[in-house]
Amino acid sequence: MRKETQEQIRTILTETGAGAILITDPYNLRYLSGFRGGEGMLVITEKSHILSTDSRYTEAAANESDFTVIQESSAHPRTEIVNECLKAEGIRRVCYEDMDLRCHDFAELREKLPDVEEWIPLGARINALRFVKTEEEIAYLARAEAIGDEAFTDILGILHVGMTEKQVAAELEYRMKLHGAENLSFSSIVASGANSSMPHAIPTDKAIEPGDFVTMDFGCIYEGYCSDMTRTIVMGKANEKQKEIYDLVLRAQENCLAHLKAGMTGKEADAYTRDLIKEAGYGDCFGHGTGHGVGLYIHEDPRISPTDETVLQAGMVETVEPGIYIPGFGGVRIEDMVVI
Amino acid sequence: MRKETQEQIRTILTETGAGAILITDPYNLRYLSGFRGGEGMLVITEKSHILSTDSRYTEAAANESDFTVIQESSAHPRTEIVNECLKAEGIRRVCYEDMDLRCHDFAELREKLPDVEEWIPLGARINALRFVKTEEEIAYLARAEAIGDEAFTDILGILHVGMTEKQVAAELEYRMKLHGAENLSFSSIVASGANSSMPHAIPTDKAIEPGDFVTMDFGCIYEGYCSDMTRTIVMGKANEKQKEIYDLVLRAQENCLAHLKAGMTGKEADAYTRDLIKEAGYGDCFGHGTGHGVGLYIHEDPRISPTDETVLQAGMVETVEPGIYIPGFGGVRIEDMVVI
Repeated sequence: MRKETQEQIRTILTETGAGAILITDPYNLRYLSGFRGGEGMLVITEKSHILSTDSRYTEAAANESDFTVIQESSAHPRTEIVNECLKAEGIRRVCYEDMDLRCHDFAELREKLPDVEEWIPLGARINALRFVKTEEEIAYLARAEAIGDEAFTDILGILHVGMTEKQVAAELEYRMKLHGAENLSFSSIVASGANSSMPHAIPTDKAIEPGDFVTMDFGCIYEGYCSDMTRTIVMGKANEKQKEIYDLVLRAQENCLAHLKAGMTGKEADAYTRDLIKEAGYGDCFGHGTGHGVGLYIHEDPRISPTDETVLQAGMVETVEPGIYIPGFGGVRIEDMVVI
Repeated sequence: MRKETQEQIRTILTETGAGAILITDPYNLRYLSGFRGGEGMLVITEKSHILSTDSRYTEAAANESDFTVIQESSAHPRTEIVNECLKAEGIRRVCYEDMDLRCHDFAELREKLPDVEEWIPLGARINALRFVKTEEEIAYLARAEAIGDEAFTDILGILHVGMTEKQVAAELEYRMKLHGAENLSFSSIVASGANSSMPHAIPTDKAIEPGDFVTMDFGCIYEGYCSDMTRTIVMGKANEKQKEIYDLVLRAQENCLAHLKAGMTGKEADAYTRDLIKEAGYGDCFGHGTGHGVGLYIHEDPRISPTDETVLQAGMVETVEPGIYIPGFGGVRIEDMVVI
């Protein structure tokens, strides 16, 4: 665990008056311990950093993490490992991740750890530690985004009239893998013609036709970190209306990128895309937020949206992705990732 | 909702004495309502079938589901929709999916629905309704598995010495998409040479060498249903030891397939692979269960394993996937899906 993170964890222990923090969210688990397997639990106290996981992962965990790895099994289950740790240090107040833990698993913990007197829900406090990225994290995010960019460049040489949306998605994903992606960060969106008016369209068997808008929203994972990118092209020659909408979305994105900086809220940042689109008369055609955080998970807080009052800080990584969607006609979205 | 499922739901309401069932597990949500979006909640009572979801999904939900779709929003949140439904029917005992619902979301429900006097955890009762597949479900599962088979046939023409495990995985996934897969059902495993001794190996940059075992475990999703298949090949000519292990795993799989039938337990079925491998002296090299259920989710119960006492029923779909893993040497796994 990084020094700075250790300080933040100590603060949470002090502020809540708890003796231990249990971590179950797989992204927080990885962030705090370095362990990539996702299945396990961390027990963090003032004195000990314990990672409980099963035999499939213990070898990898020991390599990846500076936590003390303890192997759980039916003979030595996770609840017992946690219990032993708490008893050894006489801990009776415990923080847990209520936004991750399932009711069933929490009920089991309460039953098996009867000596715990108080269970304190952490809300999104651990997730918030992940908001500001380190230089290493930013390098991974940049590489992931670069892989998407390389795949998009490939696609421009492959796209042709008659290809289906599903085929385009398959090519994009294949190219990202060939360029070094570990995985996809989400299911790719490829939407053509009128379909492109749906921000969350699923790729269909529709063939791309001359004059179609083709919106491609895709991303991959590199060293655990996600990328997210949207490009909209016209197949062949764009008409006046298509040019008008595309240029407006691009101007909105560029306006936000030019003004975005640490110290403003997500809401203030959102206005730099939204006001421009509203003034041009397309306010009703832009129904989603301008952007979101990206890191180990594809959709992190804080958001750049009309309702997020979080103050943006240097080192946060956000998407900027305004869009205009006109039912029956089509839509445009342009998305890039930026470091605040 | 299918007639038979309605009967099963009625039984749960009677047995628990509850007036309503809240469904949050995305697979159960789809199974019961037909809605594919995954984000929402079902409220099922004797009188009403309600699906609460947000504006991104309401149009699709109305097409896909025979439930009454109600749009949730900040002005009319999900908890209020549930509350109105329970109040209208005077319901004070409610079942919830404790194996899916997060503590935080359950706490919010309890706070916003103070008139509910008893909350009854459902455990895996709804998941169990999905065990026996309909003919339509079996057709989708068969098509998903056939897509995997087509991709494997393609791969045999592509595989060559020098290709990396990651490249093989990328090709497999790309081919599944081209053959009609909606998505992958899990992250593909491609493990060559000594790596193949790890059942859950992640594809690496290791190049495939002459004489390597190459284990490929992969699957896709078709109409929401998952496939799962493992093939092990030798690159070039197999040596005697490789032949011995491969033939033993194949015989173990064939022995299980020949005996597997409704009425036996998962444990009894498991013995048909395990005993043969044990007798040949490789018992310690087969550390996982023989198989698992497959459906909307890739790893469903019941399991074919040394500990699962569930009685297998006609219409269940299971994998049969024995393996032998020898550290430093390599491993073999052969996996197919079968209808009991």
